[in-house]
Amino acid sequence: MNAGRTLEWDWYPGTIPANVVIDETAYVETSFSFYLFRSAMPAAVTYRRGASTYLGTMFDLGPRGRVELGEYALVHGARIICDAEVIIGDYALVSWNVLFMDTYRLPRGIPGRRQALQRVPGHPLRIADGDVPAQPIRLERNVWIGFEACILPGVTIGEGSIVGAKSVVTQSVPPFTVVAGNPARVIRRLNPFDQRA
Amino acid sequence: MNAGRTLEWDWYPGTIPANVVIDETAYVETSFSFYLFRSAMPAAVTYRRGASTYLGTMFDLGPRGRVELGEYALVHGARIICDAEVIIGDYALVSWNVLFMDTYRLPRGIPGRRQALQRVPGHPLRIADGDVPAQPIRLERNVWIGFEACILPGVTIGEGSIVGAKSVVTQSVPPFTVVAGNPARVIRRLNPFDQRA
Amino acid sequence: MNAGRTLEWDWYPGTIPANVVIDETAYVETSFSFYLFRSAMPAAVTYRRGASTYLGTMFDLGPRGRVELGEYALVHGARIICDAEVIIGDYALVSWNVLFMDTYRLPRGIPGRRQALQRVPGHPLRIADGDVPAQPIRLERNVWIGFEACILPGVTIGEGSIVGAKSVVTQSVPPFTVVAGNPARVIRRLNPFDQRA
Repeated sequence: MNAGRTLEWDWYPGTIPANVVIDETAYVETSFSFYLFRSAMPAAVTYRRGASTYLGTMFDLGPRGRVELGEYALVHGARIICDAEVIIGDYALVSWNVLFMDTYRLPRGIPGRRQALQRVPGHPLRIADGDVPAQPIRLERNVWIGFEACILPGVTIGEGSIVGAKSVVTQSVPPFTVVAGNPARVIRRLNPFDQRA
Repeated sequence: MNAGRTLEWDWYPGTIPANVVIDETAYVETSFSFYLFRSAMPAAVTYRRGASTYLGTMFDLGPRGRVELGEYALVHGARIICDAEVIIGDYALVSWNVLFMDTYRLPRGIPGRRQALQRVPGHPLRIADGDVPAQPIRLERNVWIGFEACILPGVTIGEGSIVGAKSVVTQSVPPFTVVAGNPARVIRRLNPFDQRA
Repeated sequence: MNAGRTLEWDWYPGTIPANVVIDETAYVETSFSFYLFRSAMPAAVTYRRGASTYLGTMFDLGPRGRVELGEYALVHGARIICDAEVIIGDYALVSWNVLFMDTYRLPRGIPGRRQALQRVPGHPLRIADGDVPAQPIRLERNVWIGFEACILPGVTIGEGSIVGAKSVVTQSVPPFTVVAGNPARVIRRLNPFDQRA
């Protein structure tokens, strides 16, 4: 990132928001990843040493959303819908077309949803407020998330665990565990002694 | 929509087909949604009061296909593959990358499928006729369909029910029920007294 | 394909690699399908009589990857991640957004994955070597793969079998069998006597 907060290699003529903190060894493929960014938090997105995000990654952060990308965390392509907090641990690997959502952004009950829908025609952003608080998502270190997986509000994925491709993860996953399926189920335990690093 | 059946805000230089009926309070983001439209039915697509469809919505309607969008129904992005009928009820909310298909458009048996494949190289549209009739899809009022869900031929989703993200719905869903998974299973009943509106 | 190994109808200004063999009755929609092609094998991709691949098909082949498309096999859109071999049988039909991967391209254990991630910031292709050998995928004749299905390393799909939309196939499928779901499960047996052709 240069002084004007643009990226030399960028195909999109955008800038990196002032409240995004990028370590000098980290890599951001494109400023387009911030097209839906609306956070007003200090350090709303933090890239630590060696962290990287590639094309297809979108930071869809609400006004109070916060995201951390740990050391050498690699995000091929994730849509991060975040009104509270999404923490991606050190050496986490996130494949393509993954979705993290810590919020539903819609009323769960019908009366509220109907009211929201009546407001939509006049609303430029098509954004409704949910009636359930956002719940943070956490990936501990060394986690691997397969392509097109979806991680729902409140989920923690424990250290070293693996989420299979196209899984929908509705509950937290313990450390050193392989889950897969829709809904995701435990399919294997890993040996922590082989796996610690 | 103006007199020439174009949309002022459209990025695509197309027109809205003459047999599409749009209430003056409804919203169509782009005429590109009709790129695959081939229906010859009167009122092949109807947008009722406050209904809206956004980028990524595609009306892939065969010659006899019919779609109705109820009052304040909102479709972020759905591919609607329809040779019979897809009815989306009032205040239904459809998220992005949803697929409705009321038809398989291919022979279910191998001999027919082989014949269809032999005809493909000379066929500009790559369209085969199925050997099973299309079966209508119905969403009753106040239904919420999560992103990347897929609704298969003949399915009815009852009033107020919710379909989880990435679900594949192969069977009808009763009213006031939450289903999720691939295949979709019932995961919760909603209290209709809380939910009616 | 003309003498310069370009396609007259191509929207992408590319060429077909010299080690791709295309029968004169076969159809390739675009040379963009070879954008990620890195195979050095003779006949790395073979299109037999009447075979066709359309937009959205990507041959992501490693240096030793090999793909065969049988007679009248039709691939609407598949990402083929192949370091060993993907065989698509005669009259196989592959729908859109399907993924075949015969390889994980990443170390399964954490220490190896961490090392791979540390190398990424300096690596233009973001490609890591796996520590598990690639395992071939085979589709026998007359197979039908539904849209957005995913076929994992080592899977064989038997003659005439059908894989439902959005299925994740982790194990081989016997002939004349319908599987669906994530993970895919057997949901029906087909009668081979009705089905042979």
